[in-house]
Amino acid sequence: MKIICNQKLLANKIGISQKAINGKTTLELLKGILLSAKGDQLTLTGYDLEIGIETYTQAEVIQEGEIVVNARLFGDIIRKLPDSFVEIETDDENNVYINCVNSRFKIKGDSAKEFPKLPEVNKEDLYNIPQDLLKNMIKQTVFAISQDQTKPVLMGELLEIVDGDISLVAIDGYRLAVRSCQVDNMINNAKVIIPGKALTDVNSLLSSEEDVKVGFDEKNAIFIINDTKIITRLLEGEFIDYKKLLPREHNSRVKLNTKELLNSIERASLLSQSEKNNLIKLSIRDNAMAITSNTDKGNVYEEVSLELEGDYLDIAFNSRYFLEGLKNIDSEEIFIEFTTNVNPCIIKPVDGVKYTYLLLPVRISSNI
Amino acid sequence: MKIICNQKLLANKIGISQKAINGKTTLELLKGILLSAKGDQLTLTGYDLEIGIETYTQAEVIQEGEIVVNARLFGDIIRKLPDSFVEIETDDENNVYINCVNSRFKIKGDSAKEFPKLPEVNKEDLYNIPQDLLKNMIKQTVFAISQDQTKPVLMGELLEIVDGDISLVAIDGYRLAVRSCQVDNMINNAKVIIPGKALTDVNSLLSSEEDVKVGFDEKNAIFIINDTKIITRLLEGEFIDYKKLLPREHNSRVKLNTKELLNSIERASLLSQSEKNNLIKLSIRDNAMAITSNTDKGNVYEEVSLELEGDYLDIAFNSRYFLEGLKNIDSEEIFIEFTTNVNPCIIKPVDGVKYTYLLLPVRISSNI
Repeated sequence: MKIICNQKLLANKIGISQKAINGKTTLELLKGILLSAKGDQLTLTGYDLEIGIETYTQAEVIQEGEIVVNARLFGDIIRKLPDSFVEIETDDENNVYINCVNSRFKIKGDSAKEFPKLPEVNKEDLYNIPQDLLKNMIKQTVFAISQDQTKPVLMGELLEIVDGDISLVAIDGYRLAVRSCQVDNMINNAKVIIPGKALTDVNSLLSSEEDVKVGFDEKNAIFIINDTKIITRLLEGEFIDYKKLLPREHNSRVKLNTKELLNSIERASLLSQSEKNNLIKLSIRDNAMAITSNTDKGNVYEEVSLELEGDYLDIAFNSRYFLEGLKNIDSEEIFIEFTTNVNPCIIKPVDGVKYTYLLLPVRISSNI
Repeated sequence: MKIICNQKLLANKIGISQKAINGKTTLELLKGILLSAKGDQLTLTGYDLEIGIETYTQAEVIQEGEIVVNARLFGDIIRKLPDSFVEIETDDENNVYINCVNSRFKIKGDSAKEFPKLPEVNKEDLYNIPQDLLKNMIKQTVFAISQDQTKPVLMGELLEIVDGDISLVAIDGYRLAVRSCQVDNMINNAKVIIPGKALTDVNSLLSSEEDVKVGFDEKNAIFIINDTKIITRLLEGEFIDYKKLLPREHNSRVKLNTKELLNSIERASLLSQSEKNNLIKLSIRDNAMAITSNTDKGNVYEEVSLELEGDYLDIAFNSRYFLEGLKNIDSEEIFIEFTTNVNPCIIKPVDGVKYTYLLLPVRISSNI
């Protein structure tokens, strides 16, 4: 293999393909990225056997070929080179020669023959989703993915397409986040579970205003973002029937300013931060909600104005889970709907965005 | 104590006094800052028995008094409050009440009686140093302070004033950094050793264009920066006679572009980064220096153009120490002076700034 390409472009593409590499792998080959020179392109592939990322850059290909290079070392070298043209050449012993202006590197590569092949995903039935919309959908749900390795199916998000409506759903046993949207051209219904890590990678690549193309088969999903393909294995198993968890009615509904509530809960949680369940108590009355917390360090009383429809209520929450939901709502105002102080509440933006954040209260003794 | 003051100003002053607090202390009282309300000021003091920082803010003092509050908790609360007026009040049981708009906190304080007193330092013979100059002097030397607890005297910097010339000197057994400057009004000579931590704190407070006032007595140094006083215990012992270490002559002198050399050494060190001594080899010839490194991962050859006066030389260095020196030189070009490949070299800026970075080579077998 022998190619010449632009340093800046190459460094950027290494950064992209490198996202697929799991830093904890002990397999030397999976710490590498596959470089394939063909036609007028250099294709770069990173693959940890779960998630594969393939991207390319224009290159002058003097001799076609393939090689695997350690992603970190190769990336560090290319990023540090001057903004000029880089020549990359291999020999029969998998040595890689990198030349750029006054720099000459020789590093050891690995044969491309052993590098695992990315699964093929049918690219015919692809959905188009605006990048900024998908980015928002991921941002508003991904934090609620379970970290519990004993429930692997909850370490991903349900992606559901029903009659042109696309939803992303994450749930971890304490809260549930659902973001839906109507998208054109969603002809087929679908229901797949995408690993959280893949969504985080996809999210980090979403930036332009073009559409991202999304497709699935039985085992894999593909996201095509500009010049980059991300292929991820789907999680197997049955996702929780989350719709059953959503309360159908409520006894109290309050309308509050999102930022005001966020700031008050942040302050109220300062005293309970080091404690296990970050307990804060809400007392909902006409016109105002009191937020209190009482710990060894002291106590705090916060008051936020609101509009109440329905009953007074005293209820307690883990402030961390409450805050994570609030931080991901862009709407200036929110509704919170309560049934009783042992049933989940629902937080929704007032601006009409189809977002639902369901949160379990903490049961405490009656004298709150 | 009862005061009213501005949230933003108070938050800023907490941040300053908090710098003196050692996060690792197990003494509850030393995790606190002392608040003293008197006249129309609130004075804030942090003190870890080595370094004390005292600063103040204007306040409406309704009732004079003192209290100690946990710096971290108090800081977190004040920073999160809205940009408004904060009322702080204490009761006879050392409870602290913090009220601001719709927020009401009650936290536990400690009696101010037990809080250690900062040493008094004679404030008559103070030297004036421009803040930006002192900042630069600290930046160019502080990284070369020893981290070796068995040589406590080298965990500080020598501050020496001789005939109106002020110098800061740091040395750690591998390299030596000296920055000197002529400053007006340096009437008395002085020679003290200031702990590295104190210099880092001082450095973080240097920002305006006003002078910093500096003074010493036998045990302590004081730095007065705007509204803030930093008092630090001096290190006891005899500092190394660094002037004896500086070579008086050289056999080779090269002139190079600082940035070019820095970039080349950064690249050359990529392969040796994970190895113990980050070894790079320099081969100095007419017009060019080759920088090479040869490790299990591969090898690298870099070439930097130079002007040579004197002999050819092959010499090896720990690239980390070399880079730390280069990164702190603002001059576009540098001189490096060599004697032999087992003697220290000296790096100096070409622009006339009085800075000397002495660096020991790594001895390697002759066949480099």
